[in-house]
Amino acid sequence: MPKGVRDFGPEEMARRNFIFDTIREVFRTFGFMPLETPAMEKLDVLTGKYGDEGDQLLFRILNSGQYLKSVDASDLSDGESAVTPKIAEKGLKYDLTVPFARFTVLNQHAISFPFKRYQIQPVWRADRPQRGRYREFYQCDADVVGTNSLACEAEIILMIQKVFVKLGITDYSIKINHRKLLSAITAEIGASGKESAFCTAIDKLDKIGRDKVFDEMHRQEISTASTEKLVPFMELRGSNREKVSALNDMLGVEGKPVLDEILRVLSLAETAGADPELVELDLTLARGLSYYTGTIFEVKVNNVSIGSVSGGGRYDDLTGVFGLPDISGVGFSFGVDRIYDVMNELGLFPDDTQVFSTVLVVAFDDQSWEYGWQALAGIREAGIQGEIYPEVAKPKKMFAYADKKNIPYTLIIGESERVNNTYTLKDMRSGDQTELSLEKVLEVLNTGQ
Amino acid sequence: MPKGVRDFGPEEMARRNFIFDTIREVFRTFGFMPLETPAMEKLDVLTGKYGDEGDQLLFRILNSGQYLKSVDASDLSDGESAVTPKIAEKGLKYDLTVPFARFTVLNQHAISFPFKRYQIQPVWRADRPQRGRYREFYQCDADVVGTNSLACEAEIILMIQKVFVKLGITDYSIKINHRKLLSAITAEIGASGKESAFCTAIDKLDKIGRDKVFDEMHRQEISTASTEKLVPFMELRGSNREKVSALNDMLGVEGKPVLDEILRVLSLAETAGADPELVELDLTLARGLSYYTGTIFEVKVNNVSIGSVSGGGRYDDLTGVFGLPDISGVGFSFGVDRIYDVMNELGLFPDDTQVFSTVLVVAFDDQSWEYGWQALAGIREAGIQGEIYPEVAKPKKMFAYADKKNIPYTLIIGESERVNNTYTLKDMRSGDQTELSLEKVLEVLNTGQ
Repeated sequence: MPKGVRDFGPEEMARRNFIFDTIREVFRTFGFMPLETPAMEKLDVLTGKYGDEGDQLLFRILNSGQYLKSVDASDLSDGESAVTPKIAEKGLKYDLTVPFARFTVLNQHAISFPFKRYQIQPVWRADRPQRGRYREFYQCDADVVGTNSLACEAEIILMIQKVFVKLGITDYSIKINHRKLLSAITAEIGASGKESAFCTAIDKLDKIGRDKVFDEMHRQEISTASTEKLVPFMELRGSNREKVSALNDMLGVEGKPVLDEILRVLSLAETAGADPELVELDLTLARGLSYYTGTIFEVKVNNVSIGSVSGGGRYDDLTGVFGLPDISGVGFSFGVDRIYDVMNELGLFPDDTQVFSTVLVVAFDDQSWEYGWQALAGIREAGIQGEIYPEVAKPKKMFAYADKKNIPYTLIIGESERVNNTYTLKDMRSGDQTELSLEKVLEVLNTGQ
Repeated sequence: MPKGVRDFGPEEMARRNFIFDTIREVFRTFGFMPLETPAMEKLDVLTGKYGDEGDQLLFRILNSGQYLKSVDASDLSDGESAVTPKIAEKGLKYDLTVPFARFTVLNQHAISFPFKRYQIQPVWRADRPQRGRYREFYQCDADVVGTNSLACEAEIILMIQKVFVKLGITDYSIKINHRKLLSAITAEIGASGKESAFCTAIDKLDKIGRDKVFDEMHRQEISTASTEKLVPFMELRGSNREKVSALNDMLGVEGKPVLDEILRVLSLAETAGADPELVELDLTLARGLSYYTGTIFEVKVNNVSIGSVSGGGRYDDLTGVFGLPDISGVGFSFGVDRIYDVMNELGLFPDDTQVFSTVLVVAFDDQSWEYGWQALAGIREAGIQGEIYPEVAKPKKMFAYADKKNIPYTLIIGESERVNNTYTLKDMRSGDQTELSLEKVLEVLNTGQ
């Protein structure tokens, strides 16, 4: 297998589907509509959107046929930068956001804005594989474009909370911040014009600590006077409303509009039932992506080895690069691989995600097999997942199959059942067996599955 | 967009998901377990599995980094065949069967055989795009490996019928044939050793007619004496059992084992409830893939422009090439793109596949918006898909949004509703509006969605 990609066998698939189905159901409840875009995009759609590093990480697809026809020896000696554009015009998508922007622009006249879409698909990055980082992984995105309404930000908070309730994750925090608040702070500490360096550095606080963050800021020509002024911002504690109130004093009239926005998002979320304890205004949250311009989000699960599992934010001009300027939107992405790891670590997957068949029909002789085959038709007709061991084999072998596949019931058939027109239903967990009519069997299986 | 690939917008996605969900549910009911494999495989896994033409149609992925380092000017002048192996070691998967075989071999010690798996994923082929043929398309496969039981063949017939009942497709035929029956006929007409040419030619009968099929056979050195002997086989009519009975006479003792197999498959399907009228033994069905060795299947929908929508068959040695010989299996693939086109042509998609939100909250002033926002929380809490127009806009604009998105209800709120603590629910199809309590609103929406 290629490095950094994975097979998902039945057990993993069932657990992953539990997460996907949960997220999809919540997206739908909030009126988001499904979209899928192709794995491949023209390279001119992809390049230049993710920075130089991103361009390096694109998987490029070799043109078909005689792809070398315009490559000559001088290209070859000029190296990859001369050859690549001549032999590869397509690449695998790197995220879901850029193809979504491309789709929106292409279909702008057919779309009713605000356009709420969700998209659950794999993306590919030629990154160095390591624990928790893969070359193919799924993203689960929801975005609304074409409205400035802060209701969209509040809906992101609500969706996160609904998803996590359904998944059983309770000890986590939805960190929020605002790019304009970061700008106001940068201005307040006398580092205007250094927003980008400031954000990059402060985002690392969790990982490298305050001293190293300050060192990095100083290297980026943010003065020690500025970093000293930053300290009280970093030491702000208290409830979200207490922080906002303190910031109103610290930032003065410049800060008021963005602080009002933050209060509005929090209050909209709360009036629609969000738990305010799970939302935390975090001034050190910056998020890497350069296109965010408003509220930004990140979800961190507490007491697990992998922290950040999801993120998003508002952007003002995602589609401008494709020719449709001034479309504001806000989006959010659930990191399924990380949520999977967290749920595994916390033991949160329901047991029944590992059950694929509710019952296995086990027959001890050929005539019994025919009898069981007909019973199975009735079982499936009732919508119950079931299978028959496809031939008469040694009982030990057939029961071992049920055990290995985690099938909770076997329907055992030998001569006596055939004669009595009954079925022996065995509960594989307790070992109990009862001789029943097919009707009764269906009753037990329907409640037991 | 690259040639031959597609975006699937919300309306198309909803309809496609209706098909995917139906197929998935049936696969599950029959005890098949989910599997996903990566988009990329090592090229040595893919090449040589689909014939020379297939190798040409593989999408190859350019190696990352300094991929040219071992390419020199002499490779360049030798052309693609010299360069490709040095610059591309991965490709996009061409079907789901080969990755499934690779997975099975890799995990042979963890798998309990018989192994029943389904897989619903896109595949890629660098084919010339044309109507109904794409460069990226989904396959929906179910395979059982590790058993010779003919119950598996019967289950394929049962699954096809269950899927088509749920999709509402009624006028179709499940064509079946058997590779060994084709061999027996080839022998009987005196063309032993010409099975492959015989199958290739006879498979085209539908498209080019009998004379051209015979011409092709003659070109392949099947004698006119042979094709004359073939005529009575091609003219066989009647029920499946009548055909088998005639074939028993025509083929003699040589034909008996395979004819018994066919009868057994038909009888197993019938005793489990399959409609025998929908299954047709078709001696001209051959299927292209070389790895089939037993029963083969194809589904043709009648009275539509695209005929064949699905196919499959039994193979004896799919995994041998990866080092695990003698594992017999049988598989089947639903062609979702074609089923989609057929359902479109026949108008079979349920109307509600186009409904994404059951209700849109429409507020006429800011205070009403807040009131509606809280009502929406209750609506979603009840599991009903809903949304609010995210700001107060002109009524015409808000209702147009509901119309364009095909939202069946609007919940209208102005001052009077606020004062009365009520909501005006408008049925967008009939135009009827009623002023109701939230409780009553939920009742109507729950039954109306």
